[in-house]
Amino acid sequence: MNAKTERVAIHLDNRSYDILVGTSLLDQPSSFDELAQGGDAVIVTNPTVAGLYKLRLLASLRGHFNETLVIEIADGEAYKNLDSLNQVFDALLTYRCNRKSVVFALGGGVVGDVAGFAAACYMRGVAFVQVPTTLLAQVDSSVGGKTAINHPLGKNMIGAFYQPLRVIADLDTLDTLPDRELSAGLAEVIKYGPIADDTFFSWIETNFDALWSRDKKALAYAVKRSCEIKAWVVGQDERESGLRAILNFGHTFGHAIEAGMGYGTWLHGEAVGCGMVMAADLSRRLGLIDAGYVERLTRLIERAKLPICGPALGVDRYLDLMRIDKKSEGGEIRFVVIDAPGRASVRSAHDDLVRDVITAHTA
Amino acid sequence: MNAKTERVAIHLDNRSYDILVGTSLLDQPSSFDELAQGGDAVIVTNPTVAGLYKLRLLASLRGHFNETLVIEIADGEAYKNLDSLNQVFDALLTYRCNRKSVVFALGGGVVGDVAGFAAACYMRGVAFVQVPTTLLAQVDSSVGGKTAINHPLGKNMIGAFYQPLRVIADLDTLDTLPDRELSAGLAEVIKYGPIADDTFFSWIETNFDALWSRDKKALAYAVKRSCEIKAWVVGQDERESGLRAILNFGHTFGHAIEAGMGYGTWLHGEAVGCGMVMAADLSRRLGLIDAGYVERLTRLIERAKLPICGPALGVDRYLDLMRIDKKSEGGEIRFVVIDAPGRASVRSAHDDLVRDVITAHTA
Repeated sequence: MNAKTERVAIHLDNRSYDILVGTSLLDQPSSFDELAQGGDAVIVTNPTVAGLYKLRLLASLRGHFNETLVIEIADGEAYKNLDSLNQVFDALLTYRCNRKSVVFALGGGVVGDVAGFAAACYMRGVAFVQVPTTLLAQVDSSVGGKTAINHPLGKNMIGAFYQPLRVIADLDTLDTLPDRELSAGLAEVIKYGPIADDTFFSWIETNFDALWSRDKKALAYAVKRSCEIKAWVVGQDERESGLRAILNFGHTFGHAIEAGMGYGTWLHGEAVGCGMVMAADLSRRLGLIDAGYVERLTRLIERAKLPICGPALGVDRYLDLMRIDKKSEGGEIRFVVIDAPGRASVRSAHDDLVRDVITAHTA
Repeated sequence: MNAKTERVAIHLDNRSYDILVGTSLLDQPSSFDELAQGGDAVIVTNPTVAGLYKLRLLASLRGHFNETLVIEIADGEAYKNLDSLNQVFDALLTYRCNRKSVVFALGGGVVGDVAGFAAACYMRGVAFVQVPTTLLAQVDSSVGGKTAINHPLGKNMIGAFYQPLRVIADLDTLDTLPDRELSAGLAEVIKYGPIADDTFFSWIETNFDALWSRDKKALAYAVKRSCEIKAWVVGQDERESGLRAILNFGHTFGHAIEAGMGYGTWLHGEAVGCGMVMAADLSRRLGLIDAGYVERLTRLIERAKLPICGPALGVDRYLDLMRIDKKSEGGEIRFVVIDAPGRASVRSAHDDLVRDVITAHTA
């Protein structure tokens, strides 16, 4: 069933843009209206997504652009690196793309990050359109303007804040998403409830089966509401100095799991799902929320087929890994905690309490 | 003789900063006041400049920062590339520099470009202070926020607009500048006269001997006035869409000379010096200025020991090289012409006229 096209307006002075959320967007000429015309279009994608959606996007772009070029970078977080970035630069220069070229990121987070950062740097900045094809990218990368590549010594260490000209979130592309990646995306959708909107949290509980069966109307609302909440948070803190940190709910524990298992073993969303259970329990132990709320969140994460129990890395190893997190300051670990359903803040916690949380939630 | 410290304020909303122009600035603690404190300082420089000024800068920084780190990249335009950039990233990550770190670019244009672009990208942007040690860098790179590296397929193709926290232009560092680089810097100083300020042009004529003998008071005024003019132009066009192009006076012919001879054979300033003679002659042939003004400009460029006669590449080769310039549109070559002393604009010109100019000014 089709959903009507929703439009989320992101207000950022002279870098404002719209997120289109709907079905059949890849095929609708109107999706590409008002984009810079007369230049060339460059699609950055990966082989899997290219096989599924490249031709449809190309067909739509041909009406609006002179030349169209497709650059395929290797699939997976391991390729979110300087080599892939340079591969994009090489292609842009080989095909003499100029300042009027528009870069389209067709794919998930890796494609969005590499293409977005390349667009930010090429000739000191060319136009960039996101066409996210995973739920995670639709609800997370669509807002905030973060682009980055990994360095052997750290994730997302080299990058830029760079806003797209538009985001085209075609929900049809979620039909081909593997279940495991749908779950990972749902982790970030669920996240917006506890940190910012208790009504949305209840809505997710009520409509979970529709989301899981990829009902387009349910997905449209979930993506739209997630983007709205993220935009509200980011709008108050574009360069990530304070409030924006609440978007990292579940991420402190989650990053420890990802790093401890070796990146790629657990998906980011899986680690965040489990991390949210831990962070909610920490909030309860701090006396901020009751056990019933922790139970509701845990149940929802479980329904999304996400892990609620962390790997047995050992409590000390968890603490070590959390201490080298980007957010830690002077060795003190900072956690996003739920102050009340729909409201979050950042604070530190006694190691003893954190140890109890880890012990309670690891195998 | 010492010059009192001049301060040029660059107004850019929340990215405003000051350019300090004076003597003994490297040793004055006040030069480093109000910079982010409590973090680490990272000096990016090259072996030549490091040997001359590294210890003095380090001594001053130690009072303001926790740790100080020096990264030396290879000297010369050929090293303004991805490898040098990555060398800076490696060092920043190896020494666990964080978002509170401040990157200092101690050197000329190459160091400023690589360090500035690295600062723009590291953790999506850390603070950046320019300490330019060449006249060219003091009058050109200090304003405008352009940073970039070269790609094998094009110069300055990968970069960012990124504003420094402060620019510290210590005129004492010009004492060790080779004569040939002083000349190259004077080309850009002279440029500001014809395009924007006829009074400054006369001032340069009158004070040329003092500038050439590196008199600090004369240099202080020339650097300050050049920065003010560039700031005025850039302030009206930060992202280089229109007016800013007049800063490229002499650059269309100049780039053809640089590219035709192989980059590095002629210094950029040498090519621009000769290019200004050609562009002024083109302006005269277009009926915009008289022969007397072309003669005055030519004489000044000659006094600065800059070439006024281009290499014999052949007229067709010049035209080909100019057609692939970044500024050309649809194969039409765009020139910055002098409309009247102190006023410039961008326009195209008939090939015949351009051919005459090249013939008249090449060996």
